[in-house]
Amino acid sequence: MNELRKDYILDRWVIIAEDRGKRPQQFVHRAEKVEKGICYFCPGNENMTPPEIARIERNGRWIVRSFPNKFPATSRKKGKIRENFLKSFYPYGTHEVVVETPEHDKNLGDLDKEHISLLLQLYIKRLREIKEDKSIKYVLIFKNKGGNAGTSLEHSHSQIIGLPIIPKLVQDEVLAAEEYRRRNGNCPFCKIWKREIKTERGIFENEHTVAIAPFASRFPFEVWLIPKRHMNSLEEMKNEEINSFAEILQKILSRLNSSLNYPPYNFYLHLSPEGEDLHFHLELTPRLTKWAGFELGSGIIINVMPPEMAAEHYRGKN
Amino acid sequence: MNELRKDYILDRWVIIAEDRGKRPQQFVHRAEKVEKGICYFCPGNENMTPPEIARIERNGRWIVRSFPNKFPATSRKKGKIRENFLKSFYPYGTHEVVVETPEHDKNLGDLDKEHISLLLQLYIKRLREIKEDKSIKYVLIFKNKGGNAGTSLEHSHSQIIGLPIIPKLVQDEVLAAEEYRRRNGNCPFCKIWKREIKTERGIFENEHTVAIAPFASRFPFEVWLIPKRHMNSLEEMKNEEINSFAEILQKILSRLNSSLNYPPYNFYLHLSPEGEDLHFHLELTPRLTKWAGFELGSGIIINVMPPEMAAEHYRGKN
Repeated sequence: MNELRKDYILDRWVIIAEDRGKRPQQFVHRAEKVEKGICYFCPGNENMTPPEIARIERNGRWIVRSFPNKFPATSRKKGKIRENFLKSFYPYGTHEVVVETPEHDKNLGDLDKEHISLLLQLYIKRLREIKEDKSIKYVLIFKNKGGNAGTSLEHSHSQIIGLPIIPKLVQDEVLAAEEYRRRNGNCPFCKIWKREIKTERGIFENEHTVAIAPFASRFPFEVWLIPKRHMNSLEEMKNEEINSFAEILQKILSRLNSSLNYPPYNFYLHLSPEGEDLHFHLELTPRLTKWAGFELGSGIIINVMPPEMAAEHYRGKN
Repeated sequence: MNELRKDYILDRWVIIAEDRGKRPQQFVHRAEKVEKGICYFCPGNENMTPPEIARIERNGRWIVRSFPNKFPATSRKKGKIRENFLKSFYPYGTHEVVVETPEHDKNLGDLDKEHISLLLQLYIKRLREIKEDKSIKYVLIFKNKGGNAGTSLEHSHSQIIGLPIIPKLVQDEVLAAEEYRRRNGNCPFCKIWKREIKTERGIFENEHTVAIAPFASRFPFEVWLIPKRHMNSLEEMKNEEINSFAEILQKILSRLNSSLNYPPYNFYLHLSPEGEDLHFHLELTPRLTKWAGFELGSGIIINVMPPEMAAEHYRGKN
């Protein structure tokens, strides 16, 4: 049965088109050809990247490290370029790469939860440092894995971009959450996790973190990770909350990798802009289908995998 | 120089990241593997498609024909499925396929402008018929060409989907156009084409139609086709305007195909909802890059091809 579903709080609509749906097994990823060559992200080649910004070491070797993107999407200049009919600015900000492991062939989901905790620690360190620049209005942390998710680089990495504006998508979510609180008296994400984890869309939970397949999933196998405690950003997490979050992320990625053969995916952190109140969460979206003319022309997304079926797949035995 | 550009009227932002940019020639498409097999869209197999809805014939054979999509994204049922915390509806509407030519190996851009005019005539006929159902609030006409644009079917075709809601993207554009008119006293799209065709973003024009590379292009080689006369929908076009529009569309596609080796692309018509006033236009977006975690997490799009360079490429000699 096809169903036109609205996001929990956003004015964002998805058609769950089960009728044309495939079974989870039909989404198994076919391995991509990878160009072999020198990898700038591997240990020993540290001098081939721009100068390092941060690293976390264990036993005298780095575990995660970050440095400026060689081809930044941002700019060091500030201010307007054009105004009146055409409007543009310098995309003032920062753009850096975080190498997630020294091991070239390791996928993020292959790493243990302690390692993923260290990656989150590095994000937190960099968030604090980048936010000292008051011209940066929003920091986006995201990961691209695989060609269809927008990266040709195989060595596991994520990126951090500091922006001079609050992206409209984030602003819309902040406003929708505010409106929800005004009407219902509580945070929508606190309600979402408490409610959804008990439904067929619930995937995993541990002491501090919940993973669900969201009701209006835009992508097959989309997952949201939500910390149970109401918090606005990653920096507010206590150590045990970081470890709990890392454990669930590892579990999801591991299940995704083993069951669908290391498919392409993105994840991105929805952090609250400074001074706003948005319950921090992470959205993970495998990239197994393509958005086509319908999605681009309408903004409505057709998803052929009901989140209920995706959640069941994640919960299934390895 | 990187530039953070705002759309002419929408609150939609794009980073033109020229620094990491490639030259147009580096976007040449590598031919995709196509699965050979029986084609339901070819002449002789008409009985293998759902029952025909419309056709246009010349000399006793069909030139374009349409029939229901075998796997519709829509539903024949109406009404709410869930309300309260989770909100959903039946996606009541219609979903059909338009086969654009009887010739299996012909790309839309390989057809002559008279043929493309007939395709537009079929769109017009179907728009009129679908709009008779007052439960359908919006009709989206779109085309997917190539795997990266969301179709695995090689035989040239487009699709028409009638929806029970006005998509938010369209509603946003309607409201932004209204706001622009309120402030400036004229239609933004009338202004856009008159202004932009004279700039380095102008591509082609003929008596009734203009093609431009929009200032805040989301995709490399994005093109907008705008009729010069202010009109809300395709149905308002006089025959000579249809022919003029077909001529420019053919010219753009032909140039795209010859210079970039038949790349994947989508196009979608921005028609005005009934009772609203949106200047009809067509948006054509080649799909040569992928949206990644940054785009999905922020809604801001990084485009590595400045529209000025794309327009120059289109204007160049074949």
